[in-house]
Order: sequence, then structure tokens, then C-alpha cells
Amino acid sequence: MIDASVLETEFHAAQEAVTRQGDVVRSLKAAVKDGKAEKSAVDEAIEKLKDVKLDMERKKKAYEDATGKTSGANKEAFRAAMLNALERRLFFIPSFKIYGSVAGFYDYGPPGCAMKQNVTQTWRNHFVLEENMLEVECPAVTPEIVLKASGHVERFTDFMVTDVKTGDCHRADHLLEHALEALLEDARNPPSPKAAHAARDLLARVGELGAEELGAALTQYGVKAPDTKNDISAPFPFNLMFKTSIGPRGDLVGYLRPETAQGIFVNFKDLLYYNGSKLPFAAAQIGNSYRNEISPRAGLLRVREFTQAEIEHFCNPADKSHPKFQSVAEVAPLLYSRALQMGEEKKPQRMALGDAVSKGIIANETLAYFIGRTYLFAQRIGLNPDRVRFRQHLQHEMAHYAEDCWDFEVECSYGWVECAGLADRSAYDLNAHSSMSKVELSAYERFAEPKEVDVLSIVPNKKELGKLFKKDAKAIADALEAMGECDALEMQQKLAAGQPVPFKVDGQVFDMQPGFVEIKKERKKMSGRNFTPAVIEPSFGIGRILYCVFEHCFYTREGDEARSVFRFTPVTAPVKCTVFPLLQRAELNERAEAMSTALTRERLSNTVDTTGTTIGKRYARTDEIGVPFAITIDYQTVEDSTATLRERDSTAQVRVPLAELPGLVRRLTDMELTWEEVAAKYPAQAAPAQDE
Amino acid sequence: MIDASVLETEFHAAQEAVTRQGDVVRSLKAAVKDGKAEKSAVDEAIEKLKDVKLDMERKKKAYEDATGKTSGANKEAFRAAMLNALERRLFFIPSFKIYGSVAGFYDYGPPGCAMKQNVTQTWRNHFVLEENMLEVECPAVTPEIVLKASGHVERFTDFMVTDVKTGDCHRADHLLEHALEALLEDARNPPSPKAAHAARDLLARVGELGAEELGAALTQYGVKAPDTKNDISAPFPFNLMFKTSIGPRGDLVGYLRPETAQGIFVNFKDLLYYNGSKLPFAAAQIGNSYRNEISPRAGLLRVREFTQAEIEHFCNPADKSHPKFQSVAEVAPLLYSRALQMGEEKKPQRMALGDAVSKGIIANETLAYFIGRTYLFAQRIGLNPDRVRFRQHLQHEMAHYAEDCWDFEVECSYGWVECAGLADRSAYDLNAHSSMSKVELSAYERFAEPKEVDVLSIVPNKKELGKLFKKDAKAIADALEAMGECDALEMQQKLAAGQPVPFKVDGQVFDMQPGFVEIKKERKKMSGRNFTPAVIEPSFGIGRILYCVFEHCFYTREGDEARSVFRFTPVTAPVKCTVFPLLQRAELNERAEAMSTALTRERLSNTVDTTGTTIGKRYARTDEIGVPFAITIDYQTVEDSTATLRERDSTAQVRVPLAELPGLVRRLTDMELTWEEVAAKYPAQAAPAQDE
Repeated sequence: MIDASVLETEFHAAQEAVTRQGDVVRSLKAAVKDGKAEKSAVDEAIEKLKDVKLDMERKKKAYEDATGKTSGANKEAFRAAMLNALERRLFFIPSFKIYGSVAGFYDYGPPGCAMKQNVTQTWRNHFVLEENMLEVECPAVTPEIVLKASGHVERFTDFMVTDVKTGDCHRADHLLEHALEALLEDARNPPSPKAAHAARDLLARVGELGAEELGAALTQYGVKAPDTKNDISAPFPFNLMFKTSIGPRGDLVGYLRPETAQGIFVNFKDLLYYNGSKLPFAAAQIGNSYRNEISPRAGLLRVREFTQAEIEHFCNPADKSHPKFQSVAEVAPLLYSRALQMGEEKKPQRMALGDAVSKGIIANETLAYFIGRTYLFAQRIGLNPDRVRFRQHLQHEMAHYAEDCWDFEVECSYGWVECAGLADRSAYDLNAHSSMSKVELSAYERFAEPKEVDVLSIVPNKKELGKLFKKDAKAIADALEAMGECDALEMQQKLAAGQPVPFKVDGQVFDMQPGFVEIKKERKKMSGRNFTPAVIEPSFGIGRILYCVFEHCFYTREGDEARSVFRFTPVTAPVKCTVFPLLQRAELNERAEAMSTALTRERLSNTVDTTGTTIGKRYARTDEIGVPFAITIDYQTVEDSTATLRERDSTAQVRVPLAELPGLVRRLTDMELTWEEVAAKYPAQAAPAQDE
Repeated sequence: MIDASVLETEFHAAQEAVTRQGDVVRSLKAAVKDGKAEKSAVDEAIEKLKDVKLDMERKKKAYEDATGKTSGANKEAFRAAMLNALERRLFFIPSFKIYGSVAGFYDYGPPGCAMKQNVTQTWRNHFVLEENMLEVECPAVTPEIVLKASGHVERFTDFMVTDVKTGDCHRADHLLEHALEALLEDARNPPSPKAAHAARDLLARVGELGAEELGAALTQYGVKAPDTKNDISAPFPFNLMFKTSIGPRGDLVGYLRPETAQGIFVNFKDLLYYNGSKLPFAAAQIGNSYRNEISPRAGLLRVREFTQAEIEHFCNPADKSHPKFQSVAEVAPLLYSRALQMGEEKKPQRMALGDAVSKGIIANETLAYFIGRTYLFAQRIGLNPDRVRFRQHLQHEMAHYAEDCWDFEVECSYGWVECAGLADRSAYDLNAHSSMSKVELSAYERFAEPKEVDVLSIVPNKKELGKLFKKDAKAIADALEAMGECDALEMQQKLAAGQPVPFKVDGQVFDMQPGFVEIKKERKKMSGRNFTPAVIEPSFGIGRILYCVFEHCFYTREGDEARSVFRFTPVTAPVKCTVFPLLQRAELNERAEAMSTALTRERLSNTVDTTGTTIGKRYARTDEIGVPFAITIDYQTVEDSTATLRERDSTAQVRVPLAELPGLVRRLTDMELTWEEVAAKYPAQAAPAQDE
């Protein structure tokens, strides 16, 4: 990984050199006017100015390539060039293309599919294997009750408006955002400072508006349907889950899961037992989730079917330390804390995670540990560490039950994109499923030594209840025993004061009289306690991460915009090595095929390119899909059983004995060996002409 | 892999030994009676008889374990014991268990999930990587038009009947099968030979019956609803696809794909281009498919959401040879050809695939190549090669367009289960999508040298048509040009005879007169031709394969039915190695943790078991989930930095230096090294007592 700060320094130094040389030219010109210098000296200085300008442009490009810090127009051009390369080389394909496609669905073609596999397997190794997580796989089709418990049936909605004439559907918040942005950017008819302020303020709050406020704002700004300019309906909530029906009777409603997490929660009890009833432990799931987006845009970033990789780390809410925290305490990603977001500069800062926890910026070690592991993962798959950050949720962004949330954001041509969310969700999810399923989802903690604890005791007088309420008596007794502490103590107070208390059971109301139930708090010696574990949830969107890898790795060869390259790390590259017979000759083709077989034996995905085009064109083709290494079989191979090995980004070549090549490429791909080490060991092949 | 035929020979030899010794005892007893021998000689002979009987029982068990050739009752007991082990150790979990589960859905728990990953990755390496296939990944949500083209909307149905009182749904064919089986097995009230013959005949044809025949048969045999014994409705087709709606308007019908294959077909054009417009090539997809089964039973074998791995090999219909066929020509799996199924013995036979192709038993090299590769794959993941076979479809089982089909069947306690299908589907699928999408899905073949070919030429007289039919003229001309050869030549004949021909275009009929269109066959020199490629489709059900791996690998330790073991190959085993500190001591635990870290660095999934139970119990626990290797850290480890390594099936142990262990386990797991080689190199640890 090239360090962007080095490139930045070089770029700024070159800028200064241009300024200095400009001054030289100007003063020389003045001197010529005054007859104090020769015209030839000016010409020479101008030539030098051209050189340093060229150098500066080159260094600017290198810096911009490494950091993506390009202007808006550049960003569009960059994205267009990259998407062109991705689509041309079949990294992805709009799904059902021969039928005109359906918005929000994409297929991964061969190199895209291979890369998605590589990123997913790297994730699995980095998280599941190294942390000994319990991986599960649950179905996507989910019965309604599970998603009622999680709140998705009621609340997993976006506000929609329809075109009153065509019936076309639009996301209300997107329409409002576009209207406000257009207003603010209208150069011909700029808004008053007051109006601009109001628009900017509203723009920042669009995501928080309810249906009524959203409707009022759409009316206030006179928002119409895009394209048709027809009137739009009032906003109403649209549930984003795909609905289906399970079984032939048609009476069991199912949805495609909107996230994989619920599958882990419903299995908590079995997983805890599998883990020897010990906390903390983490479970993970990689699988597809589904969101029926109202009008998907932003290409690969907002799709209707996507792969998630989610972790649920279950722990004692009283102890969120992490045994391996020290291993990431020195890791220092860009942190964009709440304070920095509210501050003057609005810029994230690098900070060691150990400091962030000790200063209370990150709520606990476990959350910080996963932030550190996520940052290391990002680097392993080839994201630019200067273009990833962790942004803390502002208070109003978090659900009421969440303790702390950080989004893992990656900078790309669309701006900063959320690629993972890391949230301390407290005991919310387990409590929700426990209360819906009536199955206790808790863990047991044995105290170091027995403790005196106040315990609520509710003892219904079953005889009395039976006499009075007959067949309802059992349900009443059960309901009494299940009362929460607050309700129970209130009832106890009233009963103690001799008041009857109306008590609702299954929709019916029964009057409780003094003597029907004994409620008291007792001091008991307890050797342990049951509690609902807290959940810390790192949740990754694999497709978005992959898209950002594409953006961070795409560049064009210096001096040739048409030659695009992906600088994928060997771990993520779709194909690890290409084998080129220099010419279409049987003796070269045979050796190329043998090399391919040897590479396959090393589990290295590889291709042989026997097309007769120039080796330069073939190198360009392999650069385009980001193959890190290329082996060329030439006539020297026939003589001395050596071949050239080329590295993609430097285009440097070395000559290596055939027998050593498969193992060498294996170690380069596993990142056990660097190209520099290889270049130092083997003789360089001075054949840059081959790369033309 | 133990050879079952060796075990069979040993078992039969032991049976004979028992018979012989029985004879000895009998003759000795007679001799004692006659006073010709001592009583003690009889006792001695009886003791020996007991020994050889014990030996015979042991050999019988070994043979049955290896082949699963057990009686019906034994099969039920075997399956119950295995499912108990699987469920207890969380290989799988009924989905949404805390909500009472939903039939046909299962979660994979940690070891099941790891094994599914291992089987899937092995499949990917064995097929996609080694064959350089083009892997794609397409969404499960599919718009209706795609599945209309494939025929699933119309024909992907099972016949259903409902209980007229409760509305419960049942599969009509299953009810009929059960009724016929009950009739045939009724010992108290056996059917007449004629009735038995009719029932047996019908039983063999149940799968082919239409709604009416099925209804008639259900009435004839008086079939009622199970459990309730109520009357049932007439059978009607029920489509097995899960239906949903894409987008917010509700007007775009979608289904969850019933197979992954269609995603490959719709991308054929792009994939062909990606492959340099060259045939043959194969594309593959691994992903989930969905079938809304009417009443799923047979546990893990018939589920509503399952993972498929499908290959579509596209080739020239005139050339179905395979370049790598020679590599499998000597491979000889059990083949159950059409002829063998129709023959007397009804037994599959081992046959070299080279012979099967040359004798015309398998239709072509490519199909046979994939049969060979499937057989090798089965062995790699630990299926017993004596319990897998390839069964050819009988003529009536195949779709009209199919050229040849073979099912990969695996024997398990449910009988022979279809785990993959290998079909030569001719050009059916591409033609279907081409005709629905109006996109040409064809390949181009350049002839070795130009050929004279008869070409149909249809030239509408546009001027004449325009004069007469005005605005319809263009549509008529287009339709004329699109005519098939047969229709065109028929029209030409009639027109030549001076007859007008009524011609239907978009529902309207126009009279064609002589002179409106010129139709003729021309001899042309062609340098190549367009054609629709044929498709050979190997399609695997990963879940079923995994289930059969469980069955083939499950056994109990000799002499202890309670100690269950899975003999998973190191490749598929969910965990590769367990590390046991012999006692709960800090110095042992530390070394165990260090060993675990070293194993993880080698990408070997491993667990440390620090529970204080006996080492024997811990070995039993690791056997239960099929961990092939175990390292025990004991006091000698502290002294000389060695530890014991135990192999699961032999329970043999060797003592190995700590530093060598991770690499050694790595090579054992990659199957680069056998346990026999390890046992020969390192000193044996004579501590069988530890395994108690």
C-alpha cells in the first residue's frame, strides 16, 4: 500500500517548484526587458517550467488516484470510466438483461463473482475463524411472527408518494432532498439568505421527518413528480419487505428477511448451550437479505437483494471488556466522533482505539475491538485506509435502546458510504423475541460469592381464586405471577390499603381483592442471577464493500487514459495469475498449459491467453481485471526452463525457473512474500518493450 | 477409504468359521455321548465357538457400517441415533424453533454450517477452479417473464388434494403411494395376486399420472385424508414457486427461483462473449433455490429453501466430445443403465466410463466426463463409493427435448436418494429464452472451409404490399420474412399454383396473392453458420449431499453404542483439530492456547477444550462432531515441548514436537499426508487408557 501522505508531500513540493520556477521566468523576463539577461535564458527557464509543471501534474494524479480527492466532475468521469470497465469485463451485469432488466437487481459475472467469494472468505477467516465465532445459516423466507417481534412488520418502512396521474411511486424523502438541493444550487435565481438557511436546516433533518411534516414540506416547496411534473399524493409508509405465503393453504404469511440478524437471535438459546452456557460469545451469519426499495438508484449501492455478513456478540451487560482488546489498542483509524461532528472543523481524527476507550469516546472495549478488526479487514481487502472512517451516530440517529453506534464509512465517488454498522444494541433484541415467543432467552451468572438480593415474590392464593373464578383461575394466577415489579408493587400498595384492583387477563377484567395474592419483596441469598445478555452487532454489507474496493483500486496507466487497471490485492483479485505463451507455437502453448495445471494444483485461479495479439495488449487485458501476476512463456523457456513473472502495478518483470513459479505465486498471493523480495532475489527481465 | 468388498469377504469367511466350529461342537457332543471324547473337549470347543461368533458379529458390523446394508428396523434405529447426534451437537436446528418451527425449513448450526462451507468450497475447487468455469451469481427474486419462458409458471406443479372438512393440503401422489404400499404390505388381509399385480403396476407409474387418472385411482382405492380420515377433494395442480411482488406498485409479479439455472441461461450471450465467443464453455452458479412444497417430509431431504450448485456446459450439438475425457476414461462407478433397470437382475454394474461411451450406454463424452468428475467429488467429500450410483432415466422419465439423463443417487436410510442430475438438455433452454425475449442466443461456427448450403430466401414485394395494405404492410413483410422453412415452402407451392393464401399477422388475416412475395431455396457458399448451442447440465443439491455424507460417516465405537463418531474426511470435517490440556493447570492451558493460535495461523479451524472432565470424555465429545485430529498437552509437553496427536478413527496416538504439529495437521487436512505416514515417522504414544 502506497502511503498517501508521502504522495501528498511530493505533490505539494512539486506545486512549490512550479511556483518558484514561475517566479524565475517572470524575473528573467523583466531582466530581458531591462537588458540585464539574454532571451535564451528565458526560453531555457520556460522549458524547465514546462518540465516541473508536467512533474507536478503527474504527482497530482498519483496523489488523487491514491486518495480519490477529485472534483465533482472528475468524480463523475472517474465513476463512468470505472463502471465501463466493470461492465465491459462482466464484473457485474444488470439482472434479466435480455428481458429489459429490473431495477435494483444485479448479477455478478465471473470476475465479480470470484471477488465476492474472495472478500466473503477473507471476512470469514478474519472474523469467524480467527475469533472462533459460531457461524449459522438460516433461511431467507421467514414467518411473520419473527418479524413482528423484531419490529420490521410495523416499522421497516419508507415514506412513499405516488404520481396522482400515472401512479408512479417515489420516495418522499428523496424528492424533498432533490428539491431543496436544487433550490440551494439555483445560480440564476438564488434564494434569500433566510430561505437558504431554512432549506439547509430542513435538508439536514429530512431523514427524521414523520409523514405529516414530510407532507407539509413537500407542499411548502411545491414538489411535483419527477419527469411528469404531475401533482403527488401525501406521503404514506410503504413496508420494504418482500411478502410471500408459506405452504399451500395461503394462511401463513412470510417475508424475505430484511437482515440476517434475526436468525441468530431466535437461535440464541441453543447457541449459548453449544458454547457451554458461557458468555461472552459471538455468532455470525453470511447470507442474502432483501429490501423491496421504492425506486432503487445509486447503481450497485442500493439494491433489492444483497449479501450481509452479521455478527452478534453476546455479553454480560455489566462487563463489555474484550479479552483480545490489547491486540487492537494501538490501531488508529479515522474516528469521527459525535464531538467532532458537532465541532467547528467537522473532520475525523486518527486516534488509537485504546485512547478512544479510555477517554470514553467509544462506549466499551468490545465495540472498539470490532472497530479495530473492521479497520484491519478493510486494509486486507485493499481499501485505502485514508478513505475509510468510523462515524459515531448522533444521539437522535440512534434507536432509544442503543448504547452507542458507529458506522464504518468508505469514501467513494458517491461521497461517504455506510458499508458496515457497529452497534451496542443492549438487550433489546433478545427481550423482544423472548416476550413474543414466551421462551426465556437469558444467561446465568454465578456470583464469585453468594449475594444478598431483594427479590420480588408473588404468590397467588390459588384456592381463593379457584373458588371465585373457576376455569379462569389458572390464567389469572399465571398472569399475576408474570407481573412486572412496578405493576406488582402498585397492586400490593392498593390491596394493602384495602382497595380492589381491576386486573386484565386476556382481554377480560377481574377484580383483585386483598387476600387474593401475596406480594412482597424478600431479601434472599443468591449464588447467581439470570439476565438477558447485551448484544454488540457489527453488520457488514458485502456488496457495498466490494463496490468501494472497485473504486479504491481503479486507476489508469500514466499517460494513457484508455489503459485501465485495478490494483486489487492478491487476496481479493478474481484471477491470481495469467499465463501467456509469447507466440502461437505448439511448444510454447504446451508449456503454458502445463504451467496453468501446476498453478491450479496450488489452488490458484488462472487463465491462459493464447490469442495471437501482442503481449502488450494481452497485459492490458489482464490489468483490466486486476490480475496481479503474469507469467510469459517465451523461447528462452524452451532453452533453459525459465519464464518471466510480471507484477501488475510496477509492470516490472523477473526471470524465474519454471519449477519455482507456482510456489512463488502462491506465497505472493498469500501475502507471505512481497514483490520487492522477489525482485531482489531473481534477475530482472529488461523487456519493457513487451509491455507496450 | 476402507474397501467394502474386503470387509464383505472377511464377514463371509467369519460366517463360515462359525458354521465349521458349530459342526465341530455338534460332532464332539455326539462323540461324548458315544464315549469317544471328553466333556472338557466340548467345553473348549464351545468357548471357541463363542469367540468366532463374536468375531463374526464384529465383522458383520464393520461390513454393515461400511455399506449401510442393514435391515429396515436397523435403518430406522441408525437414522434416529444419527439425527439425535446431529441435533444434539447443533449440526442443524429446525428453523424458528422458539416460535414452534415451520415445516421444510432448517438452520445449519456451527458444525453444520462449517461442513456445508467445506462441501461447497470443495465443489467450487473441484468444478469451477479446476475446469476454469465461468461462475455467476444471480438474484433469487425473479420476474415472472423469465419463469414463463422456462415453463415453470405453467408446469412447475404438484397435484394437491385437500381434506374437505379441515382444508388441510396433501400431495395426491404421496397419498396414493402410501395407500398402495399399505395394501401390498397388509399381512392380515393380503390382496389377491391379481389385485397385488395391479397395485404394483400402478405404484410404478404414480409419478406419471395426470390429474384425472390420479383422481380416478384415489377414488378406486378409497383414499381418505391421513389422520382425519375425511374425504378428499379431486387433485388439482399447485404451483410450487413462492410468489411475491417486485417494487411498490404491485404490478410486477416475481417468484423466488425454483432453480439457479435460469440465471445462467439469461446471461448466455454475455458469457459467450466473455469466453472470446468460443465454445465449449461451462458456467456455474451456487445459490439458494426455493420450492413451496405442499407437505414437506423426509426431514433434511425435502426442504423449502436449499442450496444448489448448477453447471451449464454449452457446446456445439454436433460435437459433444470433451478435451479432458481421457482423464476419467478409466474411472468406473456403478452405472445403472436403462438396460440394467429393465433387465432381470435390476442391479447396477461397475463400468469404466470409456467403455460406457464407446458402447453407447452414455450418450456422449461430455456427459460421461461430468459423471466421472461427480464420482471423484463424491469420494473426496467422504461418500462411500459402493453406495453411490448413476441411474439413467428411462425414456418416459425424460423431457421430450432431453437426449440423455443420469441421476447421481446415494444410498441412505431412506433408500436411493437423488443428489444430482446430469442431463443433456439439447438446445431447449436457450431456444425458450430466445423466443420469449426476442434476443438471439446463438453461437457462430466458422467452417474449416466454405460450404455450399441450401438457404431459404423470402423477399416480400414491399411496393405491392404497401399499395394494398398501407400501414399494415411493414408488419406483413416482417412476418413473411420470419416464416419457418416449412410454412414458407407450403405458401410458395400454393402461390405458384395461383392460389391465394390467408396469412395471419397479429391476429388479423391478410390474403397473399402470387407476386406479393418471392420464396425460393438458393444454393449459397457459406463460411460458417449460426446455431443454438446444446446444454449439458450437472445440477447438485448441496443439502442432500451433505445429509448423505452424515449418514455414510456415522458409526458407533465397537462395544459402545453410546459413543457415536462421524468419520468425516479432513477436508469436510467442521473442525480440523481439538486441543486438550490434560489437566486444568495454567502452564498447560497457556501452551494449549498457543497451539490453538498456531493452528489458526495455518487456517485450521480448531477448538480448545479446557473443561475439567476426563480426557476420554473429551475425546468422545470431539469424535461426536467428527474432528479428525486431537492434540493433548500434558506434563511431558512442559518438559520436552512435544505433545500427542490422536487420529479419530484408529484412536492411535503419536508424540510430535510442538513446532511440527501445525504444519503436520495442515498437510494431514489437505490430504497431502496419510495418518499411516505420520504413524510410521513419529513414536507411538502407548496410552490407550487415555481414550477411555
